[in-house]
Amino acid sequence: MTAIAKIKNDLEKILPKDSILTSKEERYVYSQDGTNGMESEILPDSVVFPETVEQVQKILKYANENKIPVVARGAGTNLVGACVPLKGGIIINFTKMDKILEINKTNMTATVQAGTIVGKLQEEVKKQGLFFPPDPSNLKVSTIGGAIAQSAGGPKTFKYGTTKDYVLGLKVVLADGNLLKVGVNTIKNATGYHLEQLFIGSEGTLGIVVETTLKLIPQPETTRVVMAYFDNISDATDSVTKMTDSNIYPSTIDFMDNNTIKTIEKFYHVGLITDKQAALIIELDGLEVSMDTQIERLKETLVQSNADNIVVSVTKEEQEKLWTARRASFSAAAKLKPDVVTNDMIVPRENISKLVQGINEIGEKYGLTICTVGHIGDGNIHPQVALDLNNETEAENYQKAKAEFYELAIKLNGTLSAEHGIGCEKKAFLSKALSPLSIEYMKKIKKMFDPNNILNPDKIFDM
Amino acid sequence: MTAIAKIKNDLEKILPKDSILTSKEERYVYSQDGTNGMESEILPDSVVFPETVEQVQKILKYANENKIPVVARGAGTNLVGACVPLKGGIIINFTKMDKILEINKTNMTATVQAGTIVGKLQEEVKKQGLFFPPDPSNLKVSTIGGAIAQSAGGPKTFKYGTTKDYVLGLKVVLADGNLLKVGVNTIKNATGYHLEQLFIGSEGTLGIVVETTLKLIPQPETTRVVMAYFDNISDATDSVTKMTDSNIYPSTIDFMDNNTIKTIEKFYHVGLITDKQAALIIELDGLEVSMDTQIERLKETLVQSNADNIVVSVTKEEQEKLWTARRASFSAAAKLKPDVVTNDMIVPRENISKLVQGINEIGEKYGLTICTVGHIGDGNIHPQVALDLNNETEAENYQKAKAEFYELAIKLNGTLSAEHGIGCEKKAFLSKALSPLSIEYMKKIKKMFDPNNILNPDKIFDM
Repeated sequence: MTAIAKIKNDLEKILPKDSILTSKEERYVYSQDGTNGMESEILPDSVVFPETVEQVQKILKYANENKIPVVARGAGTNLVGACVPLKGGIIINFTKMDKILEINKTNMTATVQAGTIVGKLQEEVKKQGLFFPPDPSNLKVSTIGGAIAQSAGGPKTFKYGTTKDYVLGLKVVLADGNLLKVGVNTIKNATGYHLEQLFIGSEGTLGIVVETTLKLIPQPETTRVVMAYFDNISDATDSVTKMTDSNIYPSTIDFMDNNTIKTIEKFYHVGLITDKQAALIIELDGLEVSMDTQIERLKETLVQSNADNIVVSVTKEEQEKLWTARRASFSAAAKLKPDVVTNDMIVPRENISKLVQGINEIGEKYGLTICTVGHIGDGNIHPQVALDLNNETEAENYQKAKAEFYELAIKLNGTLSAEHGIGCEKKAFLSKALSPLSIEYMKKIKKMFDPNNILNPDKIFDM
Repeated sequence: MTAIAKIKNDLEKILPKDSILTSKEERYVYSQDGTNGMESEILPDSVVFPETVEQVQKILKYANENKIPVVARGAGTNLVGACVPLKGGIIINFTKMDKILEINKTNMTATVQAGTIVGKLQEEVKKQGLFFPPDPSNLKVSTIGGAIAQSAGGPKTFKYGTTKDYVLGLKVVLADGNLLKVGVNTIKNATGYHLEQLFIGSEGTLGIVVETTLKLIPQPETTRVVMAYFDNISDATDSVTKMTDSNIYPSTIDFMDNNTIKTIEKFYHVGLITDKQAALIIELDGLEVSMDTQIERLKETLVQSNADNIVVSVTKEEQEKLWTARRASFSAAAKLKPDVVTNDMIVPRENISKLVQGINEIGEKYGLTICTVGHIGDGNIHPQVALDLNNETEAENYQKAKAEFYELAIKLNGTLSAEHGIGCEKKAFLSKALSPLSIEYMKKIKKMFDPNNILNPDKIFDM
């Protein structure tokens, strides 16, 4: 019996046969994830679809006893190769563990299985007047388990924080199959170490999250979207301080650079002004009665920051139209070249304009086409690089450019990843962002939870 | 040379002589903290006042090599015996490391030393239009280091979260004297494990925080305070859901039970209505232009919840007057008996009324006078027990009652501490709230960071 057949045979003792994939085609599909140009040379041995916590526990216990690597996977939408099975093994697909177990309106909490889709959760809690703010761009398909694994954020982070600010408690299956319950069901907790936080952003390397209790907040009554253009990026970033000085706290302040504006306009003709260096799309929320004042003050601060062509949406349709431009940035970039690689960096807000300028200079140096977008309230910048990954020179140039992006972000007092994680894509650069001592303690923690290194091996760092 | 003289002698090689206290009187003062009825039978060997990170590193290195316990201390205001030197050793007092190193308005961050007073930080950031929301009741004297150690919250947690939601980065001196930098300077981070979160609420048992970079938010433009009375507690808790359903998101919803109301009125004659079962003090914040609507809707929801005697403050003076009543609860309780012990528990909001009722029943059973206050938005309840700790029966009865409080909170799906921590006061009850596996991993982490168990030994759990 081959190793693969043996694993299949063993897994059939734990799961129904139709919950196990082992054909070469199926295994090939799961050798990659949403990350462009990142696939495993080794195929996984099998892909399983558990439906219960107990099944996950049995799979882990079996894998640990037999030192078989295990990679947890939600929708596989991450952008750092976090679900790529670098050492083969078993992929646990959480698609079937997607139940919203409870939305408790009084407690303002939701308890959900790891495979629950973020957008679905947002819709369901909205029906009860509640709000789960983290909104990664792929939220229509991506899962809560994935958001926890990658410490996902989204445009609303500026006002509302990231996934880690909403996780109250977790059920985690450990490498040895034990079920660990960490955190609480309540909004506050000062009962021992915050172990739940250790699993957030750990990319399935310390344990596999199967269930979580999340904090919810009241749904804002209404929103408005405003768009404005700037002749230079520093005016755009300066406008944020002017907003907060006027007691305006937008939920989102999204940014597009000149290349992005031009590229969107080139392919979609939505009426963007293409000679501007920056555009901001700003979402305000709150009580309807506050909206006129919010918009008036926002417009004042934008004018003071030399913005022009300010457009204010009122209806849902008008808001959608403004957002469509920003959302089109990826697909527009994808029309330039066969591939687009989206990156993720963050710097303190005061250094955004230096970062964007630097990214463009690096792009020019390596002959790369870059459309940069980002969330400038929190300093998070996403260069989208359009290229042909099958063109060896372009692919190599991107690797060089990427290294320089990261060095620049770190030099500007920022860090390697804001909301995508490290995976295998940024692993080689971790020591640029973190001290050796800090990495040493991360590895000690990894070894403590996963002594056989079966959980998503070779992600974040090599053991 | 005695052990104490030897330690003094050794410390004088690290610190100026006047930064080391060793007299019996001084050591006695530091054998206790803000916790009533909790003092160490063993006095500390010395109390030191470092001024630099390097000095803290040298003290730790020395202590670790000589296996001398070390307890970090800010203002010592905690309520769980977290700064009590159970095994003697060195107390590091952070009073002299109280510098605000930077308030960066553009980045909306502050970098401060651990000894910085929370209230001072709030004042300074307010001058720049910014806001640091965590507001433990002792904030006029308590330190950021202490807030981090105990995972402090405060009345504003309901809307704004606790200390853990504002810590971006930390500098921590480890047991061996090494300086560990964890976290970032930016609002988001997905670069490896969130080690900074591990130190929050760890009560100085994993490392000693010497510096932190904190997230700030825009200062709300204006606030209003509203007070209302209820004939039963469940009406009061139900009103919160009605508020959020009306898109009203108060920054604070503080609660006083009938005993508290009566006790305050008895001693301070502030005009409270003493035949009501509950009073809420609700703070609204936001734009001035939204205030009339917020108050109107709030009043509607309160009336729907059978509240009466609704008082709305407008001026700062009127607001202060309403808050004074709530703040007087501790000192009023202190007039009933020689001592007051404030406790801390949390349950999901739906169970608050059962918890408060249960606390009163337990109080009756043991003949204890209890004034219960709390933050009902998040379910956090503080029974304040007035008693004579020198009366052996009363002291014993309190111990029994306390154990029953905790059991009840846990039975009601809550936990042992919301914002005070565990210290030595709640240590014996940890296993009621956490699973053996969870405690086992906490101990493994403790052992990893502090193999000689010198850092605040016997706190949270015994090794």
